[in-house]
Amino acid sequence: MFAPVYLDHNATTPLDPRVLEGMLPYLREQYGNASSRHEYGRAARRAVDEARQRVAFAVGAHPTEVVFASGGSEANNLFLKGAAASLKPGTVAVSAIEHPCVREPAKQLARVGWRMREIAVDANCRVTSADFSDRPALVSIMLANNETGVVQDVATLASQAKSAGAWFHTDAVQAFGKRAIDFRVLNAAGVNAMTLSAHKIGGPKGAGALVVDKRVELQPLIAGGGHERGLRSGTENVAAIVGFGLAAELATARLDERAAELVALRKELEAGLLKQGATIFAGAAERLPNTSYFAIPGIDGETLVGRLDRAGFAVAAGAACSSANPEPSHVLLAMGVDPQLARGAVRVSLGAGNTSAQVRNFLTALESTLLQLRGMTALAS
Amino acid sequence: MFAPVYLDHNATTPLDPRVLEGMLPYLREQYGNASSRHEYGRAARRAVDEARQRVAFAVGAHPTEVVFASGGSEANNLFLKGAAASLKPGTVAVSAIEHPCVREPAKQLARVGWRMREIAVDANCRVTSADFSDRPALVSIMLANNETGVVQDVATLASQAKSAGAWFHTDAVQAFGKRAIDFRVLNAAGVNAMTLSAHKIGGPKGAGALVVDKRVELQPLIAGGGHERGLRSGTENVAAIVGFGLAAELATARLDERAAELVALRKELEAGLLKQGATIFAGAAERLPNTSYFAIPGIDGETLVGRLDRAGFAVAAGAACSSANPEPSHVLLAMGVDPQLARGAVRVSLGAGNTSAQVRNFLTALESTLLQLRGMTALAS
Repeated sequence: MFAPVYLDHNATTPLDPRVLEGMLPYLREQYGNASSRHEYGRAARRAVDEARQRVAFAVGAHPTEVVFASGGSEANNLFLKGAAASLKPGTVAVSAIEHPCVREPAKQLARVGWRMREIAVDANCRVTSADFSDRPALVSIMLANNETGVVQDVATLASQAKSAGAWFHTDAVQAFGKRAIDFRVLNAAGVNAMTLSAHKIGGPKGAGALVVDKRVELQPLIAGGGHERGLRSGTENVAAIVGFGLAAELATARLDERAAELVALRKELEAGLLKQGATIFAGAAERLPNTSYFAIPGIDGETLVGRLDRAGFAVAAGAACSSANPEPSHVLLAMGVDPQLARGAVRVSLGAGNTSAQVRNFLTALESTLLQLRGMTALAS
Repeated sequence: MFAPVYLDHNATTPLDPRVLEGMLPYLREQYGNASSRHEYGRAARRAVDEARQRVAFAVGAHPTEVVFASGGSEANNLFLKGAAASLKPGTVAVSAIEHPCVREPAKQLARVGWRMREIAVDANCRVTSADFSDRPALVSIMLANNETGVVQDVATLASQAKSAGAWFHTDAVQAFGKRAIDFRVLNAAGVNAMTLSAHKIGGPKGAGALVVDKRVELQPLIAGGGHERGLRSGTENVAAIVGFGLAAELATARLDERAAELVALRKELEAGLLKQGATIFAGAAERLPNTSYFAIPGIDGETLVGRLDRAGFAVAAGAACSSANPEPSHVLLAMGVDPQLARGAVRVSLGAGNTSAQVRNFLTALESTLLQLRGMTALAS
């Protein structure tokens, strides 16, 4: 099988074989519905409870604060629409660089009586001057951006939002597993809720969580049998939840060493990129250790990604989730990047298993790809 | 490992080993995000597309009518709340025997300006006299009930609802895989949308679908990156969707023979139950081939289920999903069953792998359990 080098860990990660091993019993003999009152059901319930403890422990939360969902998109929608349904319509303020699964539910609220306001970022992709004087009811600012990897000072922002009377949510999907997260500390600062996803940390697709403190009143997005303390109904995806728990545990083990390894790899990558004339977006800002977002002036990002794929390297142009959309990245536009340069954006996101040799081979492939593309441009002009 | 005989297939089913086999590549080397524009992503996209074709083919729908979701609860919520968000508040009419994941979203609508009306059933659990003269905007009547197994004449009901101007939805989660479903025929009669679930048909937990015709305008329940034609955002759970496709294909193969086998087993079961003094709910109505719902007068259902579990037989008291609730089944109450008798309700739902020997052993275990329980009652009185 043709197996390109995978450099797209912010889109999704390989399922860790140790996680799959732990999931398999729940895909075989332990197939019970966790709500059933017989041995199969109780075994499933125990597995879900244990996974809840693992996820909670990994982020410094209490197990009763973990609401399992089908993924990050659902958890973000649950917070925004679930909290809004408990409030009188007011202002929902989200940063201009949020993932579509925060922006779109906020836009939906704007169609049912809410006012949606975007919080600007600076050229480094940072929210530096949040103004909550309009007293928003709901605020959502992501912990780390999926495209640039830039980390926000969420604790400070949450404490400002809290003073203004807001419920504060952070999408921690990309930060989780790449830097330490302590929900107790964030919660004390004013973060009421936080979104996590399993498949970005070596866990399976199909599991995520909203970590949410008890003060927030939420209406369920998926109402029904009353699972997850009534906040998310539907038969628990036991195997995926078990995998999420194991992945969360693994993701927080050796976090500092793994981060240092990734930073070293990225340093090598970015030195090579700069030599080839790349602009690295938010290169000077505090970023996740694994993420590099760049453009080569005059080279189209989609084209480059296609060429690199054929050369054996899987990278992303813009965010995977919005790749059906040919518009330049809304994140880069919010940073004030020139749209022409933004159309060149390519993201390399490193992860488990990536090596220095792979980075060097990638740089070599990039160099010859650029030669080809520039040759074609020269011929065409 | 202690492995009781599993007689609770309406709660969930064992994952078919052939389905797991087909899923494993997507839990191992084919881990791409289906939105990614590289080889890993394209492989995932192809797998999702193929699964969509399998599910569509299994129920006589067009692949573009299949919206994948995390399960039946989500699909039911998507229809009711997603359609309501496109309409002016009006009446939502749901049968009195719907699963909580239909009843609860309908109740949520009733808190935001809608009127919720329950459609009554007769003593046989059948909707016989639906009156749509109040011109409901949305109607939801399940194809087969999860507790009694009773099948509704959905085509006729839908055609009446359509004449009254309603959008008609049916929860087909329990019917799917147990009797033939042809969405083209149902759709022509007036069924606009239909909910399916993978884990009730030998597929994995974590996948379901709303099959919905193009005339229905839906707002997404989970908004974001625009997956599933904008109707359900979130990274596709590729492995679970692949499993859903395979399970759908297997569930519709040999459907008549499998149904005949289940009916024969159930006949044996119910003959034995009647000898032991059981009342079989809706026993005379048209039912799914695998479902038996009964009570032994004077015997508490929860107690009986616990005893049978220890004796090695996994059966359900009431519906698994609402088993946290000690109230008698809303389905039985809607049928006019005496609440005292309803508290005795036990459901046996047969499925793949169950044998005549298991049924006989179950009847023997039931007999001795009843002797014990009656002995205790006699001592206590």
